[in-house]
Formats: sequence, C-alpha cells, structure tokens
Amino acid sequence: MNLLLLDDADFVAADRVLLRDRRLTHLHEVHRAESGDSLRVGRLGGLMGEGRLLSLSRDEAELQVSFTQAPPAKLPLTLLLALPRPKMLRRVLQTVAAMGVPRLVLLNSYRVEKSFWQTPFLEPAAIREQLVLGLEQARDTVLPEVTIEKRFKPFVEDRLPALAAGSLGLIGHPGPWPDCPRAVEQAVTLAIGPEGGWIPYEVEKLREAGLAPVQLGERILRVETAVTALLARLF
Amino acid sequence: MNLLLLDDADFVAADRVLLRDRRLTHLHEVHRAESGDSLRVGRLGGLMGEGRLLSLSRDEAELQVSFTQAPPAKLPLTLLLALPRPKMLRRVLQTVAAMGVPRLVLLNSYRVEKSFWQTPFLEPAAIREQLVLGLEQARDTVLPEVTIEKRFKPFVEDRLPALAAGSLGLIGHPGPWPDCPRAVEQAVTLAIGPEGGWIPYEVEKLREAGLAPVQLGERILRVETAVTALLARLF
Repeated sequence: MNLLLLDDADFVAADRVLLRDRRLTHLHEVHRAESGDSLRVGRLGGLMGEGRLLSLSRDEAELQVSFTQAPPAKLPLTLLLALPRPKMLRRVLQTVAAMGVPRLVLLNSYRVEKSFWQTPFLEPAAIREQLVLGLEQARDTVLPEVTIEKRFKPFVEDRLPALAAGSLGLIGHPGPWPDCPRAVEQAVTLAIGPEGGWIPYEVEKLREAGLAPVQLGERILRVETAVTALLARLF
Repeated sequence: MNLLLLDDADFVAADRVLLRDRRLTHLHEVHRAESGDSLRVGRLGGLMGEGRLLSLSRDEAELQVSFTQAPPAKLPLTLLLALPRPKMLRRVLQTVAAMGVPRLVLLNSYRVEKSFWQTPFLEPAAIREQLVLGLEQARDTVLPEVTIEKRFKPFVEDRLPALAAGSLGLIGHPGPWPDCPRAVEQAVTLAIGPEGGWIPYEVEKLREAGLAPVQLGERILRVETAVTALLARLF
C-alpha cells in the first residue's frame, strides 16, 4: 500500500478521516505507523496529498488530511480481455489498475471455460476490491471502468466498431503478424485473448471490427504478463 | 503447460519417453490427452519438437519424440533483482524464465527483510521447479542461470563491474531519471530494487559500478510487473 486511499465514508470533517478496517491493520502491521507520522493519501476519484496521524489505537486511526496533487495520467486505452480464470482475474484486475488502464472490457471467448463466469470474483464489490489494491500499489485514485460482455458476437459486431473508432485497434496474438508497435501517440483499443488464444473465427471478427493482430515474439506469456508487456511496449 | 519439457531421466530409448509425475497428471486433467495425440515437446537444455502419445494410462504415458527446432533466443541481459518476498519470488522466477532472461542474480538490499533469505523457495530444487514452469509456459528449453548474492557491497564492488563491462548498465528506479530506453540493440545489465526501492547508498554503489538509473513513470509497480514492463520496454 503505497497510497492510503480514502473514500467519502471515511471523512468525519473536511480534513479529518477515521479508519477502522484493513487499512488500520496495514498501518499497524506493515507501516508500523505511530502517532505523528505522515503518510501519502488519496481521495478515491480525486486528488492525492498528505495525511498526518493524529492518533492510532488498536480500534481506529484518525488522520488530518490535505489534498494538493493530481493523480497520474491514465493510458489512452480501452483494453478488451477474454475473461481469465478466477485466480488470474484477481491479479489482472490489480495489474490493470496499477498500470493506468482507464477502461476494461471482460469478454467471452470460445476458450473461456463456462465455469469462469460463475466466480464470485466477478461481483462488483470483488472487482472493486482488486482495483483498489492496484491503485494503492501504483499511487492512483481513479478506478478503471470495468464492463462485462458475456456474448462475444453481439459485442464485437454491434458495439466494438464504435468503441474502437478513431483509435489504433490491435489484437495481441502470437503468430506471423507485425511486431507490436512502440511508443504510440494515439489512443489504442487492444484485445488480449484467453489462455490458448482467440480462435480464428474470433480473430476474423475482431479484424472486421477494425482491429489488427500484432505479436511480441515466439514466447507464450501468461495473460497477466502479456497485459503488462503489451502496455509497456505500446506506451 | 504449452511445452512438455523432458529431461534425460525420462528417456527409455533415443526416441521414447515414459512419464509418471505431474506431467502425466497434467496430460490427463488439463490436456485431456488421448493415445495418438500429438504434443509439443522440448528436451531440457536442447531442441524442441513433436511427441506422439503411444499409450496413456493412470500410471504412465509413453511418447515417441523427435526434436527438430531450436528454442527461442534469450534476451541479451543480466538481471540483478533484490530478493523479493517468498510468494513473489516464485512468480518472479516463472516470469524471468518465461520472458527469456538467461542470467539472474538474487541480491540483498537494505529493504530485503532478513527472513526472506530463510525461505525454502531459495533451495536449488525449488528454484528449478519455478523456472521449469516458466519454460513450459513460454515454450523454451534452456534454464536461466540463477546466482545468489547475500552480501550487497562485496558483490557490487568486486564482481559487478566485470559482470556489467561492455553492457548498458541500468537501474530501474522511480524518480527524476531519464526514461527507460526502448528497443536497445546491445547487451544490458539491469538492477531492479525491492519493494520500497534501493536506498540512496545502494543507488550510489550501483552507479559506481557503471549502472545508471532510469524510470518508467510515476506509478509504483510490484516487482513482478516492473520486471515484465522493463524487459518489454528495453527489448
């Protein structure tokens, strides 16, 4: 936790917050914080700044806070991701938030096991929990917008062309494609497939929607590693 | 497991292998393989090719194998990594192997907790297990060479200058440094710090050994994400 992220419910006055949850535990156990310490704080969806610990006990922490600094810029990106397996989903959500992805679409694919759609990690509170961990890690305050598309074809045929319009549309896909471009200046729509990759029909549909396949080399990367590698290459 | 990795003990003839361990379980449970199926195989430290399942039972699998293809090239890189916490270490070892790092040095730092050096995950067999998982993921056969340096100062003063000689020496470190370069052509020696970063003394010592700090932006990334992002940017 490199940033103590606060939301409206934490505030008892315009410049005072009270914490009683896992963040309190973290202050004790990881930061080994003491009264008088200064900490980096951020207001969810807002500015970042400094917090001073007025008091700290087993039951609660009180901080005086001030907000002066804008959070880091987001990437100019819409990321489409075939729904990963539940354990990977949690890590990918953290990575997506930490890397500064503003918009994530979790999408079905032929190779997404049907059972993956049943996971409790897809519930809004569970998604939000992982995104907050990513923001705390990277020092950002703005939650990515996550949408869920359980049907590939209607999403890709009916909604993706408008979503991708005016952006560089890319499919991260192993194979004999051009290298993933570097340091692009424009907005990007990037689709990353499931373990085993998109099937040819899906690649064709994504191409019809204006996206073009690019690759990172012969090595097959796990989804989380592929997301990080493609974003670090692109931006 | 995108590659069935075989070592000498698996061979019962020049072109036959018998499997009885987790790879057999994987063939059953993940690949749902059947007699007659073809699979990608690789010989640890050698070539890759095709295996045909001659027979498959609960107890063993027999494959006929042939090797025709070189594994993918490694990156021209020596990676120095402050020892991560044990859980992260396992994942980082997989990532390092999957991304094609040929040489990894696990190094002490002021911010590495002493207890991290006690983990059983640092034993050679445990390190090898994680590296093999990374090779199987990425389709590579050549184990990275991992060395362990429990004392920062003698390593950085006495051995690092020779190790880094003739390469581009970089320290991945948040701060007011130049951007991490892209698409470098030469060999690189890259040092990545612990959670919380190298302390100023360590940065100074690494600079004296010929490495220069570079940064990836304001966001603080987890070690595993930072490794992937820096390698994807550099190569």
